[in-house]
Amino acid sequence: MAACLKLFITLYYCTCFMIAGVVDGKPNFVILLMDDMGWGDLGVFGEPNKETPYLDKMAAEGMIFPDFYSANPLCSPSRAALLSGRLPIRNGFYTTNAHARNGKAVLNLYPQIITGGIPDSEILLPEVLKKMGYRNKLIGKWHLGHRPQYHPLKHGFDEWFGAPNCHFGPYDDIDTPNIPVYKDAEMAGRYYEEFAIDKKTGESNLTKMYLNEAQQFIKKQVGKKEPFFLYWAADATHDPLYASSNFLGMSKRGLYGDAVKELDYSVGQILQSLKDNGVDKNTVVFFSSDNGAATYAKTGGGSNGPFLCGKQTTFEGGMREPTIAWWPGVVQPGKVSHQVGSLMDLYTTFIELAGGNIPTDREVDGISLKDALLNNTVTDRPLFYYRGNELMAVRVGLYKAHLWTWTNSIKEFNAGIDFCPGEEIEGVTTHEQMNNTNQPLLFHIGRDPGEKYMIRPSLEEYKKVMPLIMEQVNQHKKNLVPGKPQLNMCDRSVMNWSPPGCEKFKCLQGPSPAPYKCSWPH
Amino acid sequence: MAACLKLFITLYYCTCFMIAGVVDGKPNFVILLMDDMGWGDLGVFGEPNKETPYLDKMAAEGMIFPDFYSANPLCSPSRAALLSGRLPIRNGFYTTNAHARNGKAVLNLYPQIITGGIPDSEILLPEVLKKMGYRNKLIGKWHLGHRPQYHPLKHGFDEWFGAPNCHFGPYDDIDTPNIPVYKDAEMAGRYYEEFAIDKKTGESNLTKMYLNEAQQFIKKQVGKKEPFFLYWAADATHDPLYASSNFLGMSKRGLYGDAVKELDYSVGQILQSLKDNGVDKNTVVFFSSDNGAATYAKTGGGSNGPFLCGKQTTFEGGMREPTIAWWPGVVQPGKVSHQVGSLMDLYTTFIELAGGNIPTDREVDGISLKDALLNNTVTDRPLFYYRGNELMAVRVGLYKAHLWTWTNSIKEFNAGIDFCPGEEIEGVTTHEQMNNTNQPLLFHIGRDPGEKYMIRPSLEEYKKVMPLIMEQVNQHKKNLVPGKPQLNMCDRSVMNWSPPGCEKFKCLQGPSPAPYKCSWPH
Repeated sequence: MAACLKLFITLYYCTCFMIAGVVDGKPNFVILLMDDMGWGDLGVFGEPNKETPYLDKMAAEGMIFPDFYSANPLCSPSRAALLSGRLPIRNGFYTTNAHARNGKAVLNLYPQIITGGIPDSEILLPEVLKKMGYRNKLIGKWHLGHRPQYHPLKHGFDEWFGAPNCHFGPYDDIDTPNIPVYKDAEMAGRYYEEFAIDKKTGESNLTKMYLNEAQQFIKKQVGKKEPFFLYWAADATHDPLYASSNFLGMSKRGLYGDAVKELDYSVGQILQSLKDNGVDKNTVVFFSSDNGAATYAKTGGGSNGPFLCGKQTTFEGGMREPTIAWWPGVVQPGKVSHQVGSLMDLYTTFIELAGGNIPTDREVDGISLKDALLNNTVTDRPLFYYRGNELMAVRVGLYKAHLWTWTNSIKEFNAGIDFCPGEEIEGVTTHEQMNNTNQPLLFHIGRDPGEKYMIRPSLEEYKKVMPLIMEQVNQHKKNLVPGKPQLNMCDRSVMNWSPPGCEKFKCLQGPSPAPYKCSWPH
Repeated sequence: MAACLKLFITLYYCTCFMIAGVVDGKPNFVILLMDDMGWGDLGVFGEPNKETPYLDKMAAEGMIFPDFYSANPLCSPSRAALLSGRLPIRNGFYTTNAHARNGKAVLNLYPQIITGGIPDSEILLPEVLKKMGYRNKLIGKWHLGHRPQYHPLKHGFDEWFGAPNCHFGPYDDIDTPNIPVYKDAEMAGRYYEEFAIDKKTGESNLTKMYLNEAQQFIKKQVGKKEPFFLYWAADATHDPLYASSNFLGMSKRGLYGDAVKELDYSVGQILQSLKDNGVDKNTVVFFSSDNGAATYAKTGGGSNGPFLCGKQTTFEGGMREPTIAWWPGVVQPGKVSHQVGSLMDLYTTFIELAGGNIPTDREVDGISLKDALLNNTVTDRPLFYYRGNELMAVRVGLYKAHLWTWTNSIKEFNAGIDFCPGEEIEGVTTHEQMNNTNQPLLFHIGRDPGEKYMIRPSLEEYKKVMPLIMEQVNQHKKNLVPGKPQLNMCDRSVMNWSPPGCEKFKCLQGPSPAPYKCSWPH
């Protein structure tokens, strides 16, 4: 007993020492969040053309997390979960309009008509950090609500350069306004107007601007006493794809690859900037993506490597994310963590590393990855795969049980929208909502990462494992307090007609308020 | 003109200097050839559980070839091509019994009834090297003919420890003899008798023996003046899978993963052995696999990562191989070569590096990878995908055209044999032989490595590319001189009844000769 105690103390001491040795007070934090980039888009995760030398180097210098997930297979809910540390079902980024709907259109259909956004009651990561003296900047896509009350500067960020929605367009500014790009609290122009994207050639300087903005921010912060949190959420790999002229045609993968190459280069430059400014050893960097690659984009989309289906689905391809942690001098180079991680964990991890307190008045789904980063330990935790208001699947250890399965409706599928192109698993990638809660579909995603080979219910393995999984499900459901659904109501009047600061450009006239229940196709 | 010439000479000089600087005369060669291991089975190529630390380290210290292929999607023809530098259609490892048949049974059906083997007229790599003073050893599977006249020691190898066929069994030694394991020219026992494989637990010490044999050989050769060629052809990832007790249960991937982990460890030990004996800088090592993973083995098989289908097929999953070159001090660490390579290139490359001459009295399909290894240059070359006697597909640059498509017969498919489980591409993974020669199916495997999205013949891209590809096909067919087919005839009398040296164990009585035309199912 005495020996055990001694060991415990020693380990604990080591941990503290390791951080204390390299971190002067609060470390800086950088999240490099990609948009619709897939697990299989990075060389280090198996992309056959090996076009991400900077990310591969980041991985070689840091720690990869091959078992890391987004909280949702869709942009908005995933990002809301990242910043709130909580599942969308809790923070409100879901809909109850129809069962298990993602609450977000796949196509270019009115992305700005949603009336909801991040509730004030959510305590976002930048809000917690701000109270601890951090300077917070968002560069790129927000996606937690585009109406002014939901803007980043109202929810903990000090600075913002980027857009509240996806860069769809061009619109006519009559029926639909183009999406604004903000510089802090006011718009600095609109996509396809001041911020060009040539949809024919794919050329745009946006990633270049986002990189420059990050470099300037890092440079500006160095020397100041306050630590910083940079949330770099570039969106070049989200449809419509774009890259700057230097990168166009440089990839073997077409425009999608060009966009990846520019993002890869940009990540390399941001890390270099941390080194050049001497803050690399004091900055925790995480690279990841908001959801699986949009396989329905066909050759214009990314790759989910060996995983099934993609964005929009709760198969592994929809939520397994290419994740790399980088913290020179603290995280050992070339490590692999088999911690089952979630983007929501960044919330908990960063707050803990900064010495802050996790809110105790609510459920927080994120766990701390501190021990995983420092000592490569692994903590058991279940992982919940939601689609809209439905718990579709759960992972416990290397087992994954699907309580519900479906990809999209047969009507949509017949119209050419395919979330699993070339991948059909009978009884799994179904086009109607299948309720399997009485006998969930069980997979071992260690030996079968592609969710191809069901473990039959008659097998001993199934009988042994399934009750343990259902225990986790019941536990989870028992304590669940759903948030107020934010994606139920739509209204054309809330579109980006007259964003703050529009006077410097042009303010548009929208229709009168006419809220209605949104209809989500899948 | 003078400037060009000068540049050429300088480059040429550099190349020579680089080799001369580190290689004292003829380098040693090591081929680490896996059996049915897939592209997606290595961490460095994207396996999600990241269970190959030694191979990943080998890649970090060496050069990976993500565009590297076997010459055939099946063991025997692939291995015959590797050692002869020639396509199976030339060296005879094919059948004309039926159109486009692989000429090798998928299941455990009489693998030893084939009467043919490597013709004496083929000049194998060890034969060329032997004449140049090399000591050649084969450890593991031969597969170029099990009758004594075809044995390795009759075709250039000085030493052999391993088996002529797959390790199927156990047989009854009455109807079917167990496969022998040879020590040089004589058998040293049989599988399931002297060489145990526990099919219930998967335990066997064979990989351990193969590792030990390699380490002893390297140690023995060091200090001798003669260079060596070690062909290490372990087979633990071929059905029936096995691993030694230390590795059983160690993988997240089940027994297949245990086998991979032991092979990974063994590769690490072999490289370490080269270092410990001070010959690492003078030894060219290539790691690869003989064909794609056997996806029909379901959870008991490997992964072909993002590629379509697997072993037996001419889709990328059948022939794209996880390939790493390692030559400390010569090949720069952490490099990626986009050379379209083939296992047949090892023939040409090794002979050139040893200062020998490639046979000029016949077509050799392998090209030299010397410049790729030393200077990371890329040489254009077409790649031909055969199945039996039919040219199924061709790759030119990043385009791949399927002249014929099929996976297996609908009868077999309905009986549960599926070469593309969970992967069905309409009109591509067909169950009848589709002749597309008039309008080949075209794919861009840079942006679409999974061969999911056909480039429609109506597109400009198709019209531009297809004639260039067909030019290569016509050129190839014009010069083709097929070898005498070795896989046409079967005879139960040629099975391993009484291998050389059987007297020390037991010699079995086989039936009288009764040759018949083999029937190959796919």
